Amino acid sequence: MKYLYKALLVLLLATSFSYGQSDQFITPKYVFFLIGDGMSMTQVHTAEGYLQQTQVGPDKEGTTGVKQLHMTTMPVIGLQNTFASDRFITDSAAAGTAMSCGHKTRCGTIAMDSSRTKSLPTIAEKARDKGMKVGILTSVSIDHATPACFYAHQPDRGMLWQISMDLARSDFDFFGGGGMNGEKVSDGKRSMQPGKPQATADNDPLEAARRKGYAIATNRAELQAIEPGTKTFAYSKDFIGGDWSMPYSIDKPQEDLSLAEYTREAIRILDNPAGFFMMVEGGKIDWACHANDARTVIDEVLAFDEVVGVALDFYRQHPAETLIVVTGDHETGGLAMGFAGMGYDSAFEVMAKQKISFQKFTDTILNDYKEQADWDDEDDDMDSEIKDLLDNYFGLNYSDLSDFERELLEKAYDQTMARKRSKGQEFSLLYGGYEPLTVTATHLLNRKAGISWGTYSHTAVPVPVYAIGAGSHMFEMMYNNSDTPRKMAEVMQVSLD
Amino acid sequence: MKYLYKALLVLLLATSFSYGQSDQFITPKYVFFLIGDGMSMTQVHTAEGYLQQTQVGPDKEGTTGVKQLHMTTMPVIGLQNTFASDRFITDSAAAGTAMSCGHKTRCGTIAMDSSRTKSLPTIAEKARDKGMKVGILTSVSIDHATPACFYAHQPDRGMLWQISMDLARSDFDFFGGGGMNGEKVSDGKRSMQPGKPQATADNDPLEAARRKGYAIATNRAELQAIEPGTKTFAYSKDFIGGDWSMPYSIDKPQEDLSLAEYTREAIRILDNPAGFFMMVEGGKIDWACHANDARTVIDEVLAFDEVVGVALDFYRQHPAETLIVVTGDHETGGLAMGFAGMGYDSAFEVMAKQKISFQKFTDTILNDYKEQADWDDEDDDMDSEIKDLLDNYFGLNYSDLSDFERELLEKAYDQTMARKRSKGQEFSLLYGGYEPLTVTATHLLNRKAGISWGTYSHTAVPVPVYAIGAGSHMFEMMYNNSDTPRKMAEVMQVSLD
Repeated sequence: MKYLYKALLVLLLATSFSYGQSDQFITPKYVFFLIGDGMSMTQVHTAEGYLQQTQVGPDKEGTTGVKQLHMTTMPVIGLQNTFASDRFITDSAAAGTAMSCGHKTRCGTIAMDSSRTKSLPTIAEKARDKGMKVGILTSVSIDHATPACFYAHQPDRGMLWQISMDLARSDFDFFGGGGMNGEKVSDGKRSMQPGKPQATADNDPLEAARRKGYAIATNRAELQAIEPGTKTFAYSKDFIGGDWSMPYSIDKPQEDLSLAEYTREAIRILDNPAGFFMMVEGGKIDWACHANDARTVIDEVLAFDEVVGVALDFYRQHPAETLIVVTGDHETGGLAMGFAGMGYDSAFEVMAKQKISFQKFTDTILNDYKEQADWDDEDDDMDSEIKDLLDNYFGLNYSDLSDFERELLEKAYDQTMARKRSKGQEFSLLYGGYEPLTVTATHLLNRKAGISWGTYSHTAVPVPVYAIGAGSHMFEMMYNNSDTPRKMAEVMQVSLD
Repeated sequence: MKYLYKALLVLLLATSFSYGQSDQFITPKYVFFLIGDGMSMTQVHTAEGYLQQTQVGPDKEGTTGVKQLHMTTMPVIGLQNTFASDRFITDSAAAGTAMSCGHKTRCGTIAMDSSRTKSLPTIAEKARDKGMKVGILTSVSIDHATPACFYAHQPDRGMLWQISMDLARSDFDFFGGGGMNGEKVSDGKRSMQPGKPQATADNDPLEAARRKGYAIATNRAELQAIEPGTKTFAYSKDFIGGDWSMPYSIDKPQEDLSLAEYTREAIRILDNPAGFFMMVEGGKIDWACHANDARTVIDEVLAFDEVVGVALDFYRQHPAETLIVVTGDHETGGLAMGFAGMGYDSAFEVMAKQKISFQKFTDTILNDYKEQADWDDEDDDMDSEIKDLLDNYFGLNYSDLSDFERELLEKAYDQTMARKRSKGQEFSLLYGGYEPLTVTATHLLNRKAGISWGTYSHTAVPVPVYAIGAGSHMFEMMYNNSDTPRKMAEVMQVSLD
């Protein structure tokens, strides 16, 4: 009898010891699904290398490492294959649908099947149906592909008005970050009608949300005043540009809300005894990758990782009840942490000299310059003013450039200043669809850092999945992006079928 | 009392249920450490995409996926940071030392510390000291950096004779794959002395191995005739070229031994009651990446994955006693699974038209052509003969090429044919140190496939670690490459200190 008790005690200890790694876990009450758009391994690790090299300087013995982000310290790593049902290289809509509904679909499709006729239930809707509160946050517009895939069902990601109108129908509890393109569409449509009819719950997505009881917060004070449990749509009219996205982190005025701050407020408002499901997208990592602007990418990854930090803080308070899954939807840009012209060297710290995103430089600084520049034809070289601007904003000192680099810059300058731009394969490879001088400036700066780009589009390389908390061991191994919400559904004890 | 027994039974079941994922495991008797040189995620997944697209054709609904390799089906995934102690972008010597000794060191160093004065014990030596038999296999020369890091201790990877002389000293049980550069060095040194002294155990690494009791097998029949338990050095004189490496898989004659076949023979010879430790390197993935030749890379990855398949077959026979860890030492080439000129499209199947490695094309086909070509100066365009060769060997049909692509090819042709080549940044970016026409041919073919390259050197992106078997859960998460052998040592119950 005495030995039996002893044996029982030993077994009890053994069981509790192996508990952390076992297939047993408490169904998580709090689920964070954090998605970096366009973010795969190179985006994450370029940011880590940049932190290290700007903080300790490169090429010193023992200081060549990386400063790990929150996400790469998580205990579980998996890999997702991202292909769509109709293309090896996915877009964000097919990837978003795979990760919200558990089905591969055609590019461009929002939470519907490949035939684009059948709506598919999303993991966020299943969480809502289970009684959890649901939050959807993004740094791009709330009707952009990735967030849309969690609350809307439309055959085409371009149907912004229809997607926005699905927002209020979702009955989700918190939307935040970027604004609604659908509102602009509604306003435009009404403007074309005689007397411009008023916004109603039937024609205007913002009005529809209001009628459904959503509090609309358009600045920090308004958001902070919202009581927990109130349905909320939060975005800041002050800073949202023409595309209704938040500004790039590198351009963000101090007083603006960061995505991490939105996340903290969302937690405050959503937290309740039945728990919550929250999807937060770092949406502009992708945009900066499309434009081949590595420094802007780095700042976006860091801003997204701050969100991971907020989620991890919450996890530490509720370790047994929280699941955090961090991933990307695809890689963008074919970013490589090396460049032919640099051999085995890296100098990521040169990117610290960049003070502005490609977009803001093009839209403001370069635009002002072009308006008053004295440029006649392509024989005109760059003047001292534009040289100064490139030096000030990108740290590119013309006199330090090689002949070959100057040639690339002068060629781009001519294209930027010309009323009619050259066409053809070479120009398309050099500039994609971007402002020639700006994209050449980021290309040159990135090359000096020891970074190169292969494309202005997405690529097919898999994306890492980082996980921690209740049920996180499910996210190990290599699998399809459509398996990810199925694993989540199993952990959350809901069904996606 | 009855309830107590029931409780005991439940606990027993619960314990055994969670056993597979617990921190408890049997110390593995058989350890496979499989290293793809220059192999990170893009190399692996480009091979998977290629298999799928050549087998089912691209752009068909539901057929856009990947055919998974053996390695990506393994249940545990981790990620290794690869930086060296003196450089963010590592070389194979520093990476090899990190993965064999558990210490970051300076680039170029073979199993010694950063001061290059202190030898570091390797995981293979510790396995030997424990009584396990040890095998070291590679598709490059056996005295190349990666294999050397497991049995040799030298301050510089270039000291090929010294490294080769360390082979016999190691007292390991099996060496196989590529031959010894050190033998050539020894031969050359002796040739310069009057009367060319005979090879002895003091001046010739092969003779040293013979005297130490190693059986030398230089073809399949000899290798197959070797009795289990015999110390062996196996390589095939018939096919090993000037660099003593095995031929690229794409060029391999049917009758030659593959790396997988060497591995099977090594298992047969090494298997014994005390177990074995085996390191197998797919060494030429890296070389083909340096040259930016994706199809040759794919075939090398597939040949390496066959080795993984052989190890998995063995694992299935000894699941509780076997640990397999598969990884790379760094990424090479900045390979991206997308290309600016292709937008979102991929056509990996076009690479099936390539019939030869860049190296063999340059050394044989192009060399023959150059010897008899009628070329005067750079105004001469490509003739029909070279056009036919590019069509036959790379599937590049000149008449299908765009003006821009033809221009790139003609420019490269002029450089290849010219006695004196142009210098400068542009040419170095276009061709690296490679034969201009050959590297331009693989660049163009890869671009048509939807693949691009950023560099002719290594990059700093982390590499995945795939693991299965006893203690494999230790290889989860993100860590340094110097942690990998420490995890292995913990699992094997040896110490690296």
